[in-house]
Amino acid sequence: MAPDGGIAPGYQLKRNSYDLGVYIELNDAVQRLRFSYPSVRAVVLTSALDRMFCAGANIGMLATSAHSFKVNFCKFCNETLAAIEDATSGSGQTYIAALNGTAAGGGYELALACEQILLADDGSSVVALPEVPLLGVLPGTGGLTRLTDKRRVRRDLADVFATTAEGIRGRRALDWRLVDSLARPTEFDAAVRDLAERAAARSARRLTSGEGVELVPLNCNESENTLSYDHVRAEFDRAAGTATLVIAGPDEVPTSVHGLHAAGAAAWPLAAARELDDAISRLRFSEPDLGTWLIKTTGDPAAVIATDELLAADDWLAAEITGLWKRTLRRLDATSRSLIALIEPGSCFAGTLLELALAADRQYMLDGVFEDGQLPAALIVGPMNAGPLAAASGATRLAVRFGPGDGLGAVLAVAGKELGTAQAMGLGLVTAAPDELDFQDEIRLVVSERAGFSPDALTGMEASLRFAGPESLSTKIFGRLAAWQNWIFLRPNASGPQGALRRYGTGQRADFDRRRV
Amino acid sequence: MAPDGGIAPGYQLKRNSYDLGVYIELNDAVQRLRFSYPSVRAVVLTSALDRMFCAGANIGMLATSAHSFKVNFCKFCNETLAAIEDATSGSGQTYIAALNGTAAGGGYELALACEQILLADDGSSVVALPEVPLLGVLPGTGGLTRLTDKRRVRRDLADVFATTAEGIRGRRALDWRLVDSLARPTEFDAAVRDLAERAAARSARRLTSGEGVELVPLNCNESENTLSYDHVRAEFDRAAGTATLVIAGPDEVPTSVHGLHAAGAAAWPLAAARELDDAISRLRFSEPDLGTWLIKTTGDPAAVIATDELLAADDWLAAEITGLWKRTLRRLDATSRSLIALIEPGSCFAGTLLELALAADRQYMLDGVFEDGQLPAALIVGPMNAGPLAAASGATRLAVRFGPGDGLGAVLAVAGKELGTAQAMGLGLVTAAPDELDFQDEIRLVVSERAGFSPDALTGMEASLRFAGPESLSTKIFGRLAAWQNWIFLRPNASGPQGALRRYGTGQRADFDRRRV
Repeated sequence: MAPDGGIAPGYQLKRNSYDLGVYIELNDAVQRLRFSYPSVRAVVLTSALDRMFCAGANIGMLATSAHSFKVNFCKFCNETLAAIEDATSGSGQTYIAALNGTAAGGGYELALACEQILLADDGSSVVALPEVPLLGVLPGTGGLTRLTDKRRVRRDLADVFATTAEGIRGRRALDWRLVDSLARPTEFDAAVRDLAERAAARSARRLTSGEGVELVPLNCNESENTLSYDHVRAEFDRAAGTATLVIAGPDEVPTSVHGLHAAGAAAWPLAAARELDDAISRLRFSEPDLGTWLIKTTGDPAAVIATDELLAADDWLAAEITGLWKRTLRRLDATSRSLIALIEPGSCFAGTLLELALAADRQYMLDGVFEDGQLPAALIVGPMNAGPLAAASGATRLAVRFGPGDGLGAVLAVAGKELGTAQAMGLGLVTAAPDELDFQDEIRLVVSERAGFSPDALTGMEASLRFAGPESLSTKIFGRLAAWQNWIFLRPNASGPQGALRRYGTGQRADFDRRRV
Repeated sequence: MAPDGGIAPGYQLKRNSYDLGVYIELNDAVQRLRFSYPSVRAVVLTSALDRMFCAGANIGMLATSAHSFKVNFCKFCNETLAAIEDATSGSGQTYIAALNGTAAGGGYELALACEQILLADDGSSVVALPEVPLLGVLPGTGGLTRLTDKRRVRRDLADVFATTAEGIRGRRALDWRLVDSLARPTEFDAAVRDLAERAAARSARRLTSGEGVELVPLNCNESENTLSYDHVRAEFDRAAGTATLVIAGPDEVPTSVHGLHAAGAAAWPLAAARELDDAISRLRFSEPDLGTWLIKTTGDPAAVIATDELLAADDWLAAEITGLWKRTLRRLDATSRSLIALIEPGSCFAGTLLELALAADRQYMLDGVFEDGQLPAALIVGPMNAGPLAAASGATRLAVRFGPGDGLGAVLAVAGKELGTAQAMGLGLVTAAPDELDFQDEIRLVVSERAGFSPDALTGMEASLRFAGPESLSTKIFGRLAAWQNWIFLRPNASGPQGALRRYGTGQRADFDRRRV
């Protein structure tokens, strides 16, 4: 990283330390490798510096950041690491961490997201998680969970490792499963090449070059109270504390998957997913006061179902677009805003777009029409709701909604059918179904009620209710670990004037309140 | 609850609200029902008040409590609710919540721990979780998790319920699965009796009365720097910030399970478990500055293995004693202190007592002896380490330690054998094995290193590493939900001068910082 390339002033990205700007670029690169370079079957992460792979998140940046920024920064980094693992498991693009120098803190956590970790056996390069001993916080991007749950590092050794500021090198790092292999400096490049070639040979990808889709810049227009793209629009009501997100369905559907390739980045399902993904990230960072998001859709439900059929084709681009929707919906799940889906005449909650409603905390569906001549709203369940867009736990949102009873089967039995309000209500797909006289009042009431509650309590409640059912490595990182880190970031022992995060690098030791909570 | 029966001054336990004292009594009652009244097959929880089952935790008490007290109070309540569920599933003592009036907040969470919830259908009695709308915090004793994961309440309905301060009554409470049945006031007592009789009839328990063991008061001596019982002793080094817990193994082993019955509360495995359980709870609340617990054992390892054999008998008392060890070890797992096991000559880490070492964050085993003539330390793995004492996730500590590889099989293959230091180290049962020249220095180093770290970061790290692997309802409550609540309790929106928890009952509304984090 260029030391003076920080996204904000006041710190230097020395020793390949990173800030949000670096992770935005990394996230973009991971995405582009999938869409623009589909013939790539192995990706090597290494450093252009000598003896320093990556020193982790920039401490100067962290020490001077607001609590909410730190939390959102870690969340975005975690989502990027999950995207790296998803590329390995879902796209046959295997990531290999070639640690040609020390990987510390977030630098080692980046390596942990790779399938293979190769460490230079040069007598000095270490892997380290020095956050607890040096900074008084946890490794913020899943390091502890990946040590125990992904790499199966014994937990007592993980304890020693995560409290050893100077890190662990060579043979011991290998014995403790902190890395997968070692290579002497003279053999390092050959070892990297060998790992990459083996990974590429194992990949199910068998594409030749030249088939990629260029991810052209999004057409994003920002004004004081709107954020709009070609298919996604957000409108802010600052007095009410809401953002209304409107996602438009496709105007046309290609007749075959070749049409998707021909349209490239302009193809509706790819463009709309990229836009929604971008909007979620922007609103998270820029609009913390808008605590409730009202989610609407417009368009022809049948066109979404037809598009979903194309996306089910045995085609790399179709699979990549589906994967992008999956990750975007997971980003929505992990967003600390109240999400309310509004299902009205003209809406388009079908298949992939139905997942937006299922990701929401509540679903309100109009019972009737607002004006004569309108068609009443309808939902359509499709194959996309039964697996490909599963939440981070691995379970579908429908399965989590209904649990092990008969509810799920009843819903899947009417897949493909237009479900009117009474039927959707009967099946348990919506929370409430006010009629046209009550609908707007009821939504106003919900919005004002939400605005009257503690934003912190809502964040904790939503995070608890959204992740009902099974847990995965990913939900543990976004739920358990993130919540602990939120707490620790806030405590004076980390962020107070005498806290470890504030005193790091000053030569002064932190002054801790020693009481255990 | 007697309104003026609070454990501390300054609040009244009106409307059956509770404080720590009430939960200490409840915990004791649940325990006594298992040991002293083993013929009981169904337990009805109801209220002596009219139209008020329980209003939850006393808000006056919460609003004036320190952060650390709130966290520890919730933890102890959660452990008691887990004990109620364990009595239902493990002892055939099925708990039934007979809500003869409103159950709000922690009152409803107490009902959620019961297998059946019967609500009076009297037009006024409600169930409610008003914490988010009224107090700006989460339900603190597992309410959200039990709604979704235990009762399978749909998450959008759970969202509506947990934001509806006035609660939900009658038919809707039933439809939403918030309760299991309704009864009109005139039919309420008969309905309770019917539920209790059915539960009793389903129970696997078939004991006649008069077989119980009286749980006599523990012989507990406290001085400034010690806490000692018959088999458990804790010594405090306040300068070092440590408590050294020494658990003594049995002096004698009954020749059969009848001997356990004859000894009653004096039987070693029952007495030692009760003492350890009591010591953990006392140290948690009273000694927050002692951040590291050094765990030692003394005695004859073979005697523990022989006792474990008795506990494996098909006998209700043996099963209850085993269950108490299981719960006590889980309390240790959930304790926010660094746990270091010291395995030295004369120690007794075998079977049940080996779990103490496996629950610890690290295990140090002396390689050699301190004095001529000593026998070197040995560990013994037994059947108790392979299932009956599983951690809260349902997995054994050995299984979590070794993951899915060959390590677990190798350890189980040497069950029953005395394992010396080299063998224990080779099998991965201990973290490090310093020799007699280094041992004390190394422990001093670990202790002083631990004392130099942020206590908050250690708590978060230990909570993450201890619960590697699968998650259960219980680990979600102790990990995910508890961490969110820790954060929320600390935020000014709850606990600041304008926070909801502080302003409750003053007639003033809370003044929130509306930004989402």
